[in-house]
Amino acid sequence: MVFSFMLPKNGNFFDLFDKQVDYAVDAATRFAIIVADLKVDDSEVERMKELERLGDEVTHQIMDQLNKTFITPFDREDIHVLTNELDDIIDMLYTITKRLRTYKILTPDRNLTEFARVIEMSVKSVAYAVKGLRDMKHPDKILKACIEVNSLENLGDRMRDDMLGELFEKYADDPVAVIKWKEIYQEVETVLDVCEDAVHVVGSILVKQA
Amino acid sequence: MVFSFMLPKNGNFFDLFDKQVDYAVDAATRFAIIVADLKVDDSEVERMKELERLGDEVTHQIMDQLNKTFITPFDREDIHVLTNELDDIIDMLYTITKRLRTYKILTPDRNLTEFARVIEMSVKSVAYAVKGLRDMKHPDKILKACIEVNSLENLGDRMRDDMLGELFEKYADDPVAVIKWKEIYQEVETVLDVCEDAVHVVGSILVKQA
Amino acid sequence: MVFSFMLPKNGNFFDLFDKQVDYAVDAATRFAIIVADLKVDDSEVERMKELERLGDEVTHQIMDQLNKTFITPFDREDIHVLTNELDDIIDMLYTITKRLRTYKILTPDRNLTEFARVIEMSVKSVAYAVKGLRDMKHPDKILKACIEVNSLENLGDRMRDDMLGELFEKYADDPVAVIKWKEIYQEVETVLDVCEDAVHVVGSILVKQA
Repeated sequence: MVFSFMLPKNGNFFDLFDKQVDYAVDAATRFAIIVADLKVDDSEVERMKELERLGDEVTHQIMDQLNKTFITPFDREDIHVLTNELDDIIDMLYTITKRLRTYKILTPDRNLTEFARVIEMSVKSVAYAVKGLRDMKHPDKILKACIEVNSLENLGDRMRDDMLGELFEKYADDPVAVIKWKEIYQEVETVLDVCEDAVHVVGSILVKQA
Repeated sequence: MVFSFMLPKNGNFFDLFDKQVDYAVDAATRFAIIVADLKVDDSEVERMKELERLGDEVTHQIMDQLNKTFITPFDREDIHVLTNELDDIIDMLYTITKRLRTYKILTPDRNLTEFARVIEMSVKSVAYAVKGLRDMKHPDKILKACIEVNSLENLGDRMRDDMLGELFEKYADDPVAVIKWKEIYQEVETVLDVCEDAVHVVGSILVKQA
Repeated sequence: MVFSFMLPKNGNFFDLFDKQVDYAVDAATRFAIIVADLKVDDSEVERMKELERLGDEVTHQIMDQLNKTFITPFDREDIHVLTNELDDIIDMLYTITKRLRTYKILTPDRNLTEFARVIEMSVKSVAYAVKGLRDMKHPDKILKACIEVNSLENLGDRMRDDMLGELFEKYADDPVAVIKWKEIYQEVETVLDVCEDAVHVVGSILVKQA
């Protein structure tokens, strides 16, 4: 834009989004470690809670910035929705971690461990896509990361279906276990849905700037 | 509008919405057949998946069209929300079909069969209302279809409550069956909620054009 | 605003919001009484249904007013979202009441009774905050009510986690009871989430007017 030198520097949004996706990646990595060990002790939950708090803080900073800034690097609505989706990713990982502790799920579950790795991959691709918005030098690479997140959501959908099928067979005589794991399995899949929603926003920003 | 001859032809949106609601009606009709038989074999699931894919495609075409078109036949936000609601209807019917297979639910259930017929009626009324937007010649008939969808949602609410009540009595000794059917019953009811959301958009388009 | 004398009187929005939050407080108070007694007879459900109907009516009036009014006292989008959140509060309380009856839950539960009191406190703070928007004379008091709602949501989150933990221990041998109460406990907590969403809108209105 020719008059861009006259505008207030909006780079701040990018710095805040960078921070937010870094927290999301941190949360996803930590979650993958937690479920691999299933030692969900208080200190693990506290660390996830701290990430959730930091994530909240940066969401508020972004919303604040949005209310104060007249010209934004992309559609206000897109900024608003994107920061909320990213916040949701961290919130959900924290909530599931707490739920594992509440349900006293103490034995690692191969299915959950694998699923957590898919989440980690997805969140990393979300982070790549969001960070790419800063200079848009490689829209093709951003797009590729978005497509990756979509594929991982499809994979996660199939994984969750298989996991639920197995669950009902494995615990046919333990309905309380079915109740617990069914919730966990369905919750982890929705994290991938939110990742997909996040890159949908990124995709629509790309299209508008094209 | 007097200058309408100068504007690009926007009829395309109506063609795309026609396509989308036709897919939704197809999915609802197929769903009603599936649950009446409960032979949820792979070919049935594949056919629902194909409808889901076609529905996705037309949603993307509508969003694409939206990004490219300067003047739209009604509010951009309304087009955006409406296409997403219609897409959700098909997605949910596909998801529930898969869930029936995952849960190995193989005996037809009279309650579910009846509910699927209510869904089919509701989706057909949604289709009627959406198709009516093209020429708005009969706003009263569109409105009647919207009201029908609302009534069916209220009916579905009561049916679901009764079905849940029955379920807990019938399967008091089979908690795993309770878990499965409770999810199915609650999911089918949300399809009617989304139909209602869709006609709310239609209603607000009507009001603005009045 | 200097030209405010030229504008149509928009006070009506405030009257309608006052009405809507009064219904919400009524519903929350009634809900607290119902769960303390757990005599969820038909007349109790009918009274909640009546409040739900009145709440719906005022929501439609607000949306109607929104479509007819050119200049609104605050952002159209904020009015739209706020009225929907307030409507959701009443709807959810009605839905949970019906669910208690459907599940034939007849023995009062200390946890649920306490939770309903937290909901009542939260809805009263939401009402205080929304009513405060009329003259904005005491933005600090509005803000304090918003913060109160946030704190109650955090408290509710912890309460729900504890309640779920207890539930799985108490009813380890009664999975059907686990299924019922788990749903109830999780549903009541989402009422506090919606209260929080409502005051988020109030908060953002405050910021924009500051």
